[in-house]
Amino acid sequence: MIENRFARRAAALSPNFPASHFPGELDEGVIPFDSGFAAPQLLPDLTGFADDALTTWREETLQYSPPQGQPELRGWLAGMMNADGCALSAENILIVNGAKHGLELVCRLLIDEGDAVVVTAPTYFTAIPIFRSFGVEFVEIGQDADGLLVDDLERALAERRAEGKPAPKLIYNVADFHNPSGATMPEDRRRKLLEIAVREGIPVVEDTPYRRVRFEGDHVPSLKALDTTGIVFHLGTFSKLVAPGLRIGWVAAEAPLIARLIQLKSDGGSSPLVQRIIYEFARSGAFPAHVERVRALYRERRDAMVAAVRRELPGATLHVPEGGYYVWVTLPSHVDGDGFAARAAAAGVNIIAGSKFFATPGREWPANMSSPRNHVRLSYSYATVAQIEEGVKRLAAVYAPVEA
Amino acid sequence: MIENRFARRAAALSPNFPASHFPGELDEGVIPFDSGFAAPQLLPDLTGFADDALTTWREETLQYSPPQGQPELRGWLAGMMNADGCALSAENILIVNGAKHGLELVCRLLIDEGDAVVVTAPTYFTAIPIFRSFGVEFVEIGQDADGLLVDDLERALAERRAEGKPAPKLIYNVADFHNPSGATMPEDRRRKLLEIAVREGIPVVEDTPYRRVRFEGDHVPSLKALDTTGIVFHLGTFSKLVAPGLRIGWVAAEAPLIARLIQLKSDGGSSPLVQRIIYEFARSGAFPAHVERVRALYRERRDAMVAAVRRELPGATLHVPEGGYYVWVTLPSHVDGDGFAARAAAAGVNIIAGSKFFATPGREWPANMSSPRNHVRLSYSYATVAQIEEGVKRLAAVYAPVEA
Repeated sequence: MIENRFARRAAALSPNFPASHFPGELDEGVIPFDSGFAAPQLLPDLTGFADDALTTWREETLQYSPPQGQPELRGWLAGMMNADGCALSAENILIVNGAKHGLELVCRLLIDEGDAVVVTAPTYFTAIPIFRSFGVEFVEIGQDADGLLVDDLERALAERRAEGKPAPKLIYNVADFHNPSGATMPEDRRRKLLEIAVREGIPVVEDTPYRRVRFEGDHVPSLKALDTTGIVFHLGTFSKLVAPGLRIGWVAAEAPLIARLIQLKSDGGSSPLVQRIIYEFARSGAFPAHVERVRALYRERRDAMVAAVRRELPGATLHVPEGGYYVWVTLPSHVDGDGFAARAAAAGVNIIAGSKFFATPGREWPANMSSPRNHVRLSYSYATVAQIEEGVKRLAAVYAPVEA
Repeated sequence: MIENRFARRAAALSPNFPASHFPGELDEGVIPFDSGFAAPQLLPDLTGFADDALTTWREETLQYSPPQGQPELRGWLAGMMNADGCALSAENILIVNGAKHGLELVCRLLIDEGDAVVVTAPTYFTAIPIFRSFGVEFVEIGQDADGLLVDDLERALAERRAEGKPAPKLIYNVADFHNPSGATMPEDRRRKLLEIAVREGIPVVEDTPYRRVRFEGDHVPSLKALDTTGIVFHLGTFSKLVAPGLRIGWVAAEAPLIARLIQLKSDGGSSPLVQRIIYEFARSGAFPAHVERVRALYRERRDAMVAAVRRELPGATLHVPEGGYYVWVTLPSHVDGDGFAARAAAAGVNIIAGSKFFATPGREWPANMSSPRNHVRLSYSYATVAQIEEGVKRLAAVYAPVEA
């Protein structure tokens, strides 16, 4: 009696999700390289801001509030993005319950069942079930160390046109410190991506969870900063910069599109209490100091992870990410990522097999793309340097398949 | 380029929404009888609970957390519902971002485009656009002082069957202190509703925002408490009992259905910070005292509103609600609710015309149902007793249409 197409799709999907290991659920001694949890050492002291929010601002923070979000927080976000090259106002910002909520709303605005969407191969795995729940066809485009292969995208769009297929409805990408590949697109490739998108009339959804977690290297403008036509929906989040438990993100887009997204929101808006806490923290002196601590600690852990992998996993290759939370490891051809991840779990280290990051893992791959099963993703955000060293040693012990 | 069917529907809907007047946006001197804001005097002091949540529980409250919600809060909610006649465990509870979010998830589970849903006439107006965004057909069933007319429901279902139409996919109802009608269904009518639902295999969605805001009268079991077959999805919220700004509600249903709803959630879960604050408040001694204060203050305001309407608006009739936030006023036939609401706004009182609460306002109504345009809804939750008296006096001055 209760099956509908959404439910059927969700049921079909679930085995595909990587298992979630929340910190409180980890078995003693297990080392989590699997998920993008915040380093506990970096969770900020928000008590003073909460106290202020619940006293001075009580009639705002505990009452219903406008669905677009707290105006001062929206203004602050527009200012932060403008300092990063954009030209936005509070009108261009919609507060959402995390970037995934923003992605879902953009899908609700743009996608009808059967539409195609462009994603990278590999792509952010949590985006995959969101897209699938809308019944999309995936157009997967490979990456190199500079991110999405724009020439391949151009070719794929031309092929679709030649076959009489409609253009995809959006291009989804993580241009900074890509999850999972770690790649950052240089400015010229970003400009080329936007040129294609504008020419073909395909909206670009830029997901930027790690943008402000840069360790080194040159600043590269965001796609939104390079966007002169309003074709970019920019997704942001406080999860990676302040704390995941806040569940607050934002969408930046043209004001008329923001107005449409608000109409598609039926959740009564994000909590004004949490928005006020974030706003008071963000505009305080504690915030820039916090961001520096975030960068310094994750840089240290990235360095430890890269060194350990190079030392302990012979034949594995990686491109050192300039920021973010993850190292994408390409395995030698005799090591299967799925088997390796299973052996690692048995040895007390949670890692995620590369195949989980491909929207259609069973497909045939072109010669210039490595197989989905040839990778693992290692997160260095939650484990300490000592755990990283111990964990990669455990990985080394189960790296090669046991002889039968 | 960016229209899809959701967006087209949302655009078509928006003129139908009553205007939102958030407390901070009200013009000086305007009296708001329009929306279900909490009385500012009742917003609790949560500073101690927030401080605890952000220190003792920091690694839980600022980290990612399980999408089903905080286990202790789910256990507490199951216990509260069990004290109210249910037989649930934490497994049966899903934490959501307010009851509207729960309703949307249930729609995602049950509804395909073109399906029918049963709603009351009138019904909760914010539910209307949520249902419409799923492309439903409405089956509207009238109410009397005892709520949904179950005989009319039975007749409507039989007529659909005779016409070869499929059964509706769900029955949506507010059985306690209905918004807007104020009616509470007696136990025998609830049993009859469930009997029909079970016989026809139609899930019932019970929305209970006001259930614990009872002023007087006998306790009536919830539909979930009377549900022996698992056919009821129960929606709850802390908005009316603690504070709307928390944006936390819950769905109670059979565990396998909860598991399916979790698969349909893509928002990363509700904020563990807010969940911990609520849980610590709810299990403290402050909570029962708070609930008593809520009941006492709204009872006083209900009394003031009922007395003022009886005194000032000749020919208007109302059924005194035993709880909740609203008085549903039936106007004499020469007073049109839409015109009255417009005149009231000009006189500095915001009220909502009854027609806004009907899913298909333009339809022909059977003889036993009063016209959608023959009512207004007056909220007494936010205005003080003095404002209620002044506001109803202003309403009296613009009650009858001005002679041309």
